[in-house]
Amino acid sequence: MDHSPNRAAAELWSSLPADPQARVQGHLIADANVLDFGVETPGSIRAGLLLARACMGGLGRVSIVPCDAARYAVANTVFVETDFPRLGCLGCQYAGWPVQSDDYFAMGSGPMRLLRGKEAMLIEQGLSDSRTDAACGVLESDKLPTASAIESIASDCGVPAKSVTVAVAPSTSIAGSIQIVARSVETAMHKLDDLKFDVRSVVSATGSAPLPPPAKSGDTIGGIGRTNDAMLYGANVSLWVDCPDDAIESILDKIPSSASPDHGRPFRTIFADYNHDFYAVDPSLFSPAVVTLHNLRSGRTFTAGRIVTEILRESFGT
Amino acid sequence: MDHSPNRAAAELWSSLPADPQARVQGHLIADANVLDFGVETPGSIRAGLLLARACMGGLGRVSIVPCDAARYAVANTVFVETDFPRLGCLGCQYAGWPVQSDDYFAMGSGPMRLLRGKEAMLIEQGLSDSRTDAACGVLESDKLPTASAIESIASDCGVPAKSVTVAVAPSTSIAGSIQIVARSVETAMHKLDDLKFDVRSVVSATGSAPLPPPAKSGDTIGGIGRTNDAMLYGANVSLWVDCPDDAIESILDKIPSSASPDHGRPFRTIFADYNHDFYAVDPSLFSPAVVTLHNLRSGRTFTAGRIVTEILRESFGT
Amino acid sequence: MDHSPNRAAAELWSSLPADPQARVQGHLIADANVLDFGVETPGSIRAGLLLARACMGGLGRVSIVPCDAARYAVANTVFVETDFPRLGCLGCQYAGWPVQSDDYFAMGSGPMRLLRGKEAMLIEQGLSDSRTDAACGVLESDKLPTASAIESIASDCGVPAKSVTVAVAPSTSIAGSIQIVARSVETAMHKLDDLKFDVRSVVSATGSAPLPPPAKSGDTIGGIGRTNDAMLYGANVSLWVDCPDDAIESILDKIPSSASPDHGRPFRTIFADYNHDFYAVDPSLFSPAVVTLHNLRSGRTFTAGRIVTEILRESFGT
Repeated sequence: MDHSPNRAAAELWSSLPADPQARVQGHLIADANVLDFGVETPGSIRAGLLLARACMGGLGRVSIVPCDAARYAVANTVFVETDFPRLGCLGCQYAGWPVQSDDYFAMGSGPMRLLRGKEAMLIEQGLSDSRTDAACGVLESDKLPTASAIESIASDCGVPAKSVTVAVAPSTSIAGSIQIVARSVETAMHKLDDLKFDVRSVVSATGSAPLPPPAKSGDTIGGIGRTNDAMLYGANVSLWVDCPDDAIESILDKIPSSASPDHGRPFRTIFADYNHDFYAVDPSLFSPAVVTLHNLRSGRTFTAGRIVTEILRESFGT
Repeated sequence: MDHSPNRAAAELWSSLPADPQARVQGHLIADANVLDFGVETPGSIRAGLLLARACMGGLGRVSIVPCDAARYAVANTVFVETDFPRLGCLGCQYAGWPVQSDDYFAMGSGPMRLLRGKEAMLIEQGLSDSRTDAACGVLESDKLPTASAIESIASDCGVPAKSVTVAVAPSTSIAGSIQIVARSVETAMHKLDDLKFDVRSVVSATGSAPLPPPAKSGDTIGGIGRTNDAMLYGANVSLWVDCPDDAIESILDKIPSSASPDHGRPFRTIFADYNHDFYAVDPSLFSPAVVTLHNLRSGRTFTAGRIVTEILRESFGT
Repeated sequence: MDHSPNRAAAELWSSLPADPQARVQGHLIADANVLDFGVETPGSIRAGLLLARACMGGLGRVSIVPCDAARYAVANTVFVETDFPRLGCLGCQYAGWPVQSDDYFAMGSGPMRLLRGKEAMLIEQGLSDSRTDAACGVLESDKLPTASAIESIASDCGVPAKSVTVAVAPSTSIAGSIQIVARSVETAMHKLDDLKFDVRSVVSATGSAPLPPPAKSGDTIGGIGRTNDAMLYGANVSLWVDCPDDAIESILDKIPSSASPDHGRPFRTIFADYNHDFYAVDPSLFSPAVVTLHNLRSGRTFTAGRIVTEILRESFGT
């Protein structure tokens, strides 16, 4: 496809620092453009939606719509539509790059991952972005990146630092929480890939997840807890697929978060039970609450999972 | 009104073949522009929304929003708003032109119908489009039009074939299913016209209908069944009208689909009972599940009909 | 902030009189631009959304989305998002200017209030618009303004009449009803300000309120009744705040409309009980049905109030 996710992200963000309605602050760090969506500024809903969209390389639309608070524990839901769930979600949106330098750490997501290209999943999927010399990514952190972090990103992407644009938002910020819960389709795609389902057969997708109340500023674990619970217990994803029915039937029960024995408690509690070791958590937990597959080939629809209002309420404190 | 529905549709579609996110393929058939939204390409949600909007001659906005799956049997609904329901829905969106040639048949809709002008309803309503020399329409089919079909369209519209643009989408495609269930307001307008209600008194309208799972590719009857059920048992239309109350009261019970004795079974079953003869089906069946009229003249609101979740589930296989 | 609400409103409206889809009529009255959104024209949904957005000085997004009619008594809700609730809602959207001349009266809202600057609340909040020489406002009325009304507006704003643009819509029109019920966040902000909560701590907000059936043309009290009921019994507002928890806890119970002893009857009845003297109605009544505050500082969420479906049904006649 003649579309550069990095170039699309750069375009979506280009006007933000100058836009008085975005509350996004531009910094130059080690020659790179650093856009602060919620570290030293409060950020905004508007910027959060553009953060989410750019994190998908422009390959989808993200909006906020009202939802039933009696069911979702909050009044707003983040809705995402995409016709490119493999490239937009797995290739760009997934937070698969632990950006690490001497003095900085953040989970990295966004189209810059396509330039780095190191992740096994990207290699297996054959995902890349050859139509750009700019790298755009998102760092989930409550600190702006250091010069060494920028250098590490530029070096991994094979571009000069001046061609790097990174957006930073903590999970406890407005924009950060929007961006994270815009990953409902991504979470489903990732789980499907883990289950060896051929994600090339997913044609289009929609997803919604409740927008959780941001955790206390600085409470990163709280932020992780709530945004994960929005997925695990509140997200509802629909996928239009084109594949044999048995490719779905053989894994259907394993798709939603309820397939995991860890399902049933707020993520914060699960995380504590594993001494906050992310890699100790059962990976099959990371999936939307409800996943529906519409199979274009057979005309059949398959659904698994359920919304769990009580855990959303407990997690969100609502 | 100084608005050409054909020109508006042409503008909405003009960038699609070159847009890598649309998955719309452009063909030149007998000099006409043929846009494939789902025959030889999978199409997309994005293209489906533009297909729906152009089919209304640009006279409305169409979007996808999440809905309550417990009520609508699917998680997505197609929402339409229009301030020109008579011209946009009856004049353009209604599939009132059986495009027929030696080697091709498809139901035709879209603003090109205004140029042909033959339909009794268009003549009675005085609907036309004199501000254009281009013809734009939609063909519901799983085949691209043949040269003879194009010639028939051009000839009926009184324009050279090179001024014709037709979009093609099967009812079993993503874009096709979006476009068809975007007709909730149109279906209400048509029923009102059948009931001799003066549709000139409808000022503005909104409507929603669940987006059904596409039927199996090639299963045209299945596609017809589900998209009709989305209307008959799942659509909810609101009309702002300006008329005497008794013009509404005298027909209110007859407006929704439940007014028909055929109401209560999936459309596929009804259709089979009539040996798949469309014209044998009780025409009063074709209406949204729920229709609400807000009368600006009296300040009174009238509602009739009901959503039938069980039939949606049965029809959609969900 | 480098944003002129008046200039933004002027830009949003600039193309409307020439837009055949808006049904907005432009008049020149005493040199001022007067835009009729529903007095001598039926107006439109599309124009109503632009009316609402411009009334906020462009500082928010307004849309219509479907809602659960069983809960909200109608099928459509007006949704508003803003990252500038203090300037956009209190500074612009609030109907705080009784525009009065020898031969005209209307409640005035919109960014022109910032130029007049007389309201105690605007002075206390330090809200103004120094980046414009144009005045844009909204008049809630079923009459176009007279020359003396225009002169009064221009004089109060300190600009020549030719720099004034006023939009006029009755509360009983489609555009007027949309614009009024787009004030859900504003109503919450105003109540918070009345309760001495520091509204500077509100960072972002969303709100929804059911779109009521317009009252009978000319029935101003009916229009006031229904639009108020949409707020008092149907609006749901979420505010992201940054403040000490006790600033919320000390007033939480007083925030929603249910805090008022007048709560529990349709506004029309309440209004009649006070002989239609607006100033006699308990001011604590004017608030959304449900208000939720997400405190960024503590990570805690506070909610008060409830939707009252029965009163919505009684008021709307649905």
